This record gives sequence, structure tokens and C-alpha cells, in this order.
Amino acid sequence: MGMDEQHVELYQRSLEATLDEIVALLDKQQLERDVSIRQSQGQGALVGALLARQQRSELERRTVRMHPADIAFVLERLPDEDERNALWEVIPAQRRGGVLLELAEGVRDGLIATMPQQDIVEATSHLESDEIAWLVPSLPMDAVSAVMSQLDQSDRSQVREMLSYPDDTVGAMMDFDMVTVRDDVDVEVVLRYLRRHKELPEPFDQVFVIGNDGVLVGVLRLRDLLTHDPDCSVSEIMVRDALIFSTHDPADEAVRAFERYDLVSAPVVNLHRRLAGVLHFAEVMDLISDKAENQPLKQVGLDEDEDLFAPVLRSATHRWPWLGLNLLTALVASRVIGAFEATIQQQVALAALMPIVASMGGNTGNQTVALMIRGIALEQISSASLWVVIRKEVSIAAVNGVMWGAIIALVSLGFYGQPTLSTVMGVAVAVNLLIAALAGVFIPLALNAVGRDPAHGSSVLLTFVTDSMGFLVFLGLATIWILG
Amino acid sequence: MGMDEQHVELYQRSLEATLDEIVALLDKQQLERDVSIRQSQGQGALVGALLARQQRSELERRTVRMHPADIAFVLERLPDEDERNALWEVIPAQRRGGVLLELAEGVRDGLIATMPQQDIVEATSHLESDEIAWLVPSLPMDAVSAVMSQLDQSDRSQVREMLSYPDDTVGAMMDFDMVTVRDDVDVEVVLRYLRRHKELPEPFDQVFVIGNDGVLVGVLRLRDLLTHDPDCSVSEIMVRDALIFSTHDPADEAVRAFERYDLVSAPVVNLHRRLAGVLHFAEVMDLISDKAENQPLKQVGLDEDEDLFAPVLRSATHRWPWLGLNLLTALVASRVIGAFEATIQQQVALAALMPIVASMGGNTGNQTVALMIRGIALEQISSASLWVVIRKEVSIAAVNGVMWGAIIALVSLGFYGQPTLSTVMGVAVAVNLLIAALAGVFIPLALNAVGRDPAHGSSVLLTFVTDSMGFLVFLGLATIWILG
Repeated sequence: MGMDEQHVELYQRSLEATLDEIVALLDKQQLERDVSIRQSQGQGALVGALLARQQRSELERRTVRMHPADIAFVLERLPDEDERNALWEVIPAQRRGGVLLELAEGVRDGLIATMPQQDIVEATSHLESDEIAWLVPSLPMDAVSAVMSQLDQSDRSQVREMLSYPDDTVGAMMDFDMVTVRDDVDVEVVLRYLRRHKELPEPFDQVFVIGNDGVLVGVLRLRDLLTHDPDCSVSEIMVRDALIFSTHDPADEAVRAFERYDLVSAPVVNLHRRLAGVLHFAEVMDLISDKAENQPLKQVGLDEDEDLFAPVLRSATHRWPWLGLNLLTALVASRVIGAFEATIQQQVALAALMPIVASMGGNTGNQTVALMIRGIALEQISSASLWVVIRKEVSIAAVNGVMWGAIIALVSLGFYGQPTLSTVMGVAVAVNLLIAALAGVFIPLALNAVGRDPAHGSSVLLTFVTDSMGFLVFLGLATIWILG
Repeated sequence: MGMDEQHVELYQRSLEATLDEIVALLDKQQLERDVSIRQSQGQGALVGALLARQQRSELERRTVRMHPADIAFVLERLPDEDERNALWEVIPAQRRGGVLLELAEGVRDGLIATMPQQDIVEATSHLESDEIAWLVPSLPMDAVSAVMSQLDQSDRSQVREMLSYPDDTVGAMMDFDMVTVRDDVDVEVVLRYLRRHKELPEPFDQVFVIGNDGVLVGVLRLRDLLTHDPDCSVSEIMVRDALIFSTHDPADEAVRAFERYDLVSAPVVNLHRRLAGVLHFAEVMDLISDKAENQPLKQVGLDEDEDLFAPVLRSATHRWPWLGLNLLTALVASRVIGAFEATIQQQVALAALMPIVASMGGNTGNQTVALMIRGIALEQISSASLWVVIRKEVSIAAVNGVMWGAIIALVSLGFYGQPTLSTVMGVAVAVNLLIAALAGVFIPLALNAVGRDPAHGSSVLLTFVTDSMGFLVFLGLATIWILG
């Protein structure tokens, strides 16, 4: 991205006003178009078309200084597909690549589907190779070969290299925009070398130092470069034990290290310790915020690219697996109750009280699940600390089981005046709280052990256990103590 | 933090091995101590004490090169309070400040409680004023005055300034570690000026340009500084329309802008456009990951500083408000069922089927809630798009209600062979899915409108609605159609 181009892009702290303006312009444009179609026999057609063209140039004027990330922000917030496409049309082809990079997957795919192959090639012509590699999976097959054929040899091999790394590795997140120097030069030479660049990588906080054999020997931080005398040698002031990633390191590990040390960038090497690329904090930040945004969706069985404005039928079918799973677990709980129909027939108050047992267990178990998921994510659970956690959660469940069991027993005594029924209720709540604590500890651990994300599914499984067991314990005790 | 000290701190990609080593050392030390206490009459006492001292110096050797963030990582993962304190003892006083900054609140408060005032003063003596301001709320009152009295005039007023900004504003997140230059100098002068610094801020990507009247007139990015000729004037190459925050801007706005534009740092000005400080991406990243870690806890009514290893009784009481709230909502649902006891008495199958109606509603409603919470957080919901969302969610509920209602009706026909009962079941599921969709849209909106975080409480309120209404619709229809 050229320097001039960048100065054109205006950073905006808040985009609400901009969004409202653009929506208003799009609405007006739509209105003029409608008028022009309705009056297409009379001279109103001409006026309408003129007005529509005027709105379009107004839209162009409004978006020309906007940062690609801001254009993406506005596009994502237009609920109407026609409006999205109308705005997309006024974005010049050479700026569209930058916008595509910033868009959420659902919206991006929709816009790419409207673009002829030539537009796609032009949109990607201003992108760097790591950015192209990132877009490739979203492009139609024939567009990919057209895009690849416009690249020079070195860019093409970089794109191929990026695509060869698995999604969740450092190799797939890095880029190639970096400056390297030899270890036998001095500060003066480095400064002269940097000055010859028309532009430097962004962000730019260090240059990488390469030995004779092409191996990475250290990093030279700009803050050290700027504070040392021009005749200092690079090998004197470079950092030799800087944090280095390998292309095959898991992305998670890089995320944790960047967070812990507040890194701006870190070198990435291949298996022979040759410099392969650089990892920037922006990639790491994207990963963290994606996770923050999407984890709550995944917990309720929704896809991360579920678009708030996607078509109804597609969204409805997306929700089926989750509804089906929940129906299955609800059916099991229902069959548990069904087995005790004779008991309920004799003491119908049981039907009104049993959801309380299940609900208290589910709620306290979900608290344990939430703590366990965070503990696993933060690597707080080791074999030594696991027993501490289990003892603690079971103790809490015991304390709370006795206390809340007693409260609930008293409340049901107030409603029904039957001491035995109240005792059954209190004991069942206490037992279900214990079951919930154990399930809350072990379900996330088990999912994690078999390599699944404990955040996805722990809650469904837990509710399944606390519902079925809650009904079983409560109705079972009632059958023995009240009717027995 | 001095340069030498920094070079001592080793960055580690993964800390699992380190953690295991330290735990082993602490266990050994504990063992030696136990031996020495048990044999305190014999010569074994001497040997035990010697061994304990040897382990201690081994621990010191092991931690001396560790980064403060890594020491914090290890401390947070020691489940035993005695072990935490034993490790804390071997950390030299002047390094403890840096570790305290990195620790989670629960662990930090526990360790501070063990420190005599003199240690606290010494620990903070190497910190910068923004870091001290950040720690002050965790310190005992008398320690705060001791810490403040050791500061020089300018640091003290900076600490006071920081403390005067509300928690969720840019002013409370910024720091004072920055370099400023005048706009009438040239690149050569800036480079010479930087070289005179012993060390530069970290991260360091721009210097701030101040006009004659002390007002911020632009920023000079290092990448521009390094690529321009020494005789270029600063005012020529500085960026005049850089993103600037004010001390009173909400922290959220800064987080969104940093994410959108991948900023490393941004200037913060006061009401008179005078430079007040600098906001760094590290602060922003901390805010994002804190939110990612703690949101799932808050959703189940737990505090963000709930420590996995906190004492049982404290943790048990922390969970009471949530359990109490859930008991209340469960009691209401139970009373709804209670009102239909006569109906259940006549048709006991209703008791087994009714949890299915409630559960399907709760699950589909929680999907809508999760989408709405993300939509609100990403500012996707405007007055224009709200109707699109409502129409869509209601349509999905209608489609899924008809489909899943029919499936569930068939399943219950299979179980009980009663067509009327099955019809009641199917219709009740469909109606509850519609109720769930509307509640799922409006509950998060309502919480947001009254200024509360929709992620905290939406799910409880939704389940309350879908349980009570599910039971009401199902049992009500049954009363009319089956018994009526």
C-alpha cells in the first residue's frame, strides 16, 4: 500500500455517524431508482436516473477517504443485500482487495460471488502474498488460477508456501514483510539501508539479523538501533535470545506468548533456523477477538460465520443439529420421568417440584463448567492441581447442597405441608448439586482429553446429566420414601 | 526497567516444563522442611535445614532469569497457598513490582496481604507512575501513603492524575512513557535527540509533535523518520490527521479503533488538546483477553476474579446470589405447573412431556440471545436493521416450530398413541419457539437499553420466560383440548 494512498485513508474513532450517512444515501439512491423505474415512460425516468447518479457520486465522495476496515464495517452492517451490492459497486477495484481482507466470512463470500473474474484479479493485484494466500480459500477455482498467474515467481511461491501450512499454525499466520541485515555491519550502515527503502513494514519494531550461512542469529530492535552510536556494530547490540517461532508451532502458543510479553512482532524460522517470515501482533489480536466473539455462539451450537442477516432458510437449517441434539437429551429426561408415572399419579405435587431439582443442579454445574473451561484455557489445571479443584468443587457443592436443600425443603413444606415430600426435595437437591459438581469438573476435562474444545458441548452434556439424574434421584427417593 | 535487567529476562514460548520443575522444587523443599521439623531433636534437623536452603537457592537460580509475566504465570498455577508464598519469598523485592502487575487479582491480593509495608514500598520503587496508579487500589491504605511519599513531585501528580480518571476511560489506560519533539526541527535533530536517550519507550513506533503553544500538532512515525533524508523537516513528514484520543473517551471506543486499524500506539490529549499520555496496544489487548476469559463466567453469575483455588467458604458464598435468583425463577415455573395439578392428575403423561416443551424453547432462544449479544457488541443492530433481525428470527422460529413441532408430535404419538395429546405437544413446541425468538431478541435489547451488559443475565431471563411460558402454553392447551 503506497504512502500517498495511506494518507488518503482517514482513521475514525467512531463510525456511527458515517454509517447513518451512508445508509441514508443508499436509501435515497434506491428511492430515485424506484421512481425512475415506475415513471420509465415519462421524462421522470431521466430525472430519476440523474438523481440516482448524483447519489452514487455522493457515495463515492463519501467513501474515497475511508479506511478499508471502515468500509468493511459499514458493509457488514447493511442488512439488505441490494444495499451491500450498491455500496460495493462504488468502491474502486484496486481498493476492494483491502476491504475483502477485513470483511466477515459470510459477507465476504456474498460479495465475491457478485464479482466477475476480472474484478477479482484486479482487487487482489494490490495485495501482498500473505494476504492473497489468506483470501484464496474464499475465491472460486478459476479465479484462483487467474490470480496466481498474475503474480511474479517469488510471490507465487510465497502464496504456495503459506497455503501449505495447516490453519492453526504460526506458518499460516505470518507474513513476509520484513527487513533483514547482516551481523557484520554497524548502526550507520543499517540506518543508511533503511533510508533507501521507500517504505518500511508496518508495524516495524525490529530488523532481523542474519549470519553468513543465512541463519537467523538475532534481532535488532529499533529502540536499540536509535539509541546507539553510528559506529556500534550490529552484533554488539542485537538481542540473541529473542523469542523465535517455528512455522509449525501451534497458533495458540504464539497467542499466549504475545499476550504474556506484549510483543509487537516475532521472527518465524523454518526447520533449518532460516528466517521464514514474521508474526505480527495484529494477527494475534484478530485471533483473540474472533475467539471472544465466537465462543458464545459455538456454545449454543452456532457456526462462527453465522451472519445476523443471512437468509432465513439457511439460518434455520444451521440450527437443526443443535435442536436435534437437545431433543434427544430432553427425550431421555422425559423417559426417566415416564418411568415414574405411577408415582406422580399418586402424588401430583412431584410434577410441580421436579423441575426445581433439575434447574438448581444445572445452574450450579454450569458455574463449575465455566470455571473449568477458563482453567483449561489458561493452563491452570495440572495433575497436581486437579485434586485440589475436585476437592474444592465437591466441598462447595456439599456446603451449598445442605444450605439450599434446607431452604428448598422449607419452601416446599410451606406449599404442600408434607414433611416427607419436603425431605425428599431437600435431599434430592443436595445430591443433584454433588452430581453437578462432579459432572462440571469431568465433562470439560473429558472433552479436552479427546481433543475437543471443552467450550463446545460441555454445557449440553452437563444439563443432560443434571436433568436426567435430578429427575431420577427425586422421583426415585419419592417412590421409596413416600409410597414405599 | 533497565536494559541489563531486560536482557536477563528470558522469553519462553511455552511454560509447561518450567512450571513442572518449579513445582518439583517446591515439593522437595516442603519435604525437607517436614523432615527437619519431625527430626528437630537429632542431627537430622541440620541436614533437613541445609537441604531446604539448597532447594531455595536452586529455586532462586531457576527464577532469576524468568520474565515477570512468567513468574506470575507460575504463581497463579500453584494451587497451594504455602507453595505460592514459598516461591514469592525467593523473588527479590525489586522484581516483585513487575510480577504484581501481571498477576490475576485474587492471587495478587493474597500475596500483598503477606508483605510488610517496607516490602511493598520497595516492590513499587522500580515501577512507573501509571503502573503504581494501577496497583494502588489493591494496596492497604497505609502502604499507599508510604508508596506515594517515596515518589518525586512529578510522578506523584501523574499517579494522582491517573487515579482521577474513571475506570473505563482512555485516561485510566494510558501511560506517560513517550517522546515528544517540536515541529520546527528536522530529521537529523530528532535522530540525535533519540540517541541521547538511554532507553526509549516500549513499544516505540512514533514520536509526538508539539507546536509552540504546547498543543499536539501531529505524530511522526518511526517508519517515516527512518526513510527520510536527515534534512527533511518534521512538519513535512509528520501525520497531521492521526487518530487522537481524549482522556475521557470510553475505553470501548479505543479498543474498537485499535482492533480495526491494528494500531501500536495512539496519542491521548486533554480537553485543551495538550498531550496527556499515550495509549498502547498492550493495554487494549489485555482488555480484550480479560473480556474473552471472563464473559463466560459472568454469564453464569460468577465474579471475574473468582479464583479456581480460592477457599471453599468464600467461593460457596459467591455462588449464592445466582443460586437464589435461579431458585426464584424455578419456583415461578413450579407454581405454573402447580396451577395445573388437576390436569396432570388426569393425564400423567403431561408430566413426562412438559420438560421437552420448555427445553426446546430454552435452547432455540439461547441461540437468538447469543446472536443478539454479538450483534450488539459489534454494533450491527441499528433501528433500520432491527426489523430485519426480528422478521428473520420470527421466520426461523416459524419454520423450525412447524418442523420440530411435527417431529415431536410424531415421537409422542409413538410413545403414548394419543392423537390429541400429540397435537397439543406439537402446537405447544411451535408456540414456545416463537415466544423464545421474540424473548431472545428483546431481552438483550432491553438490558442494553437500560445500560446493562446484555451478556450478564440475558440467558437466565430467557430461560425463565421459555420455562414458564412453555409450561403454561402446554398445560393450558392440554386443559382445554384434552379435558375440556
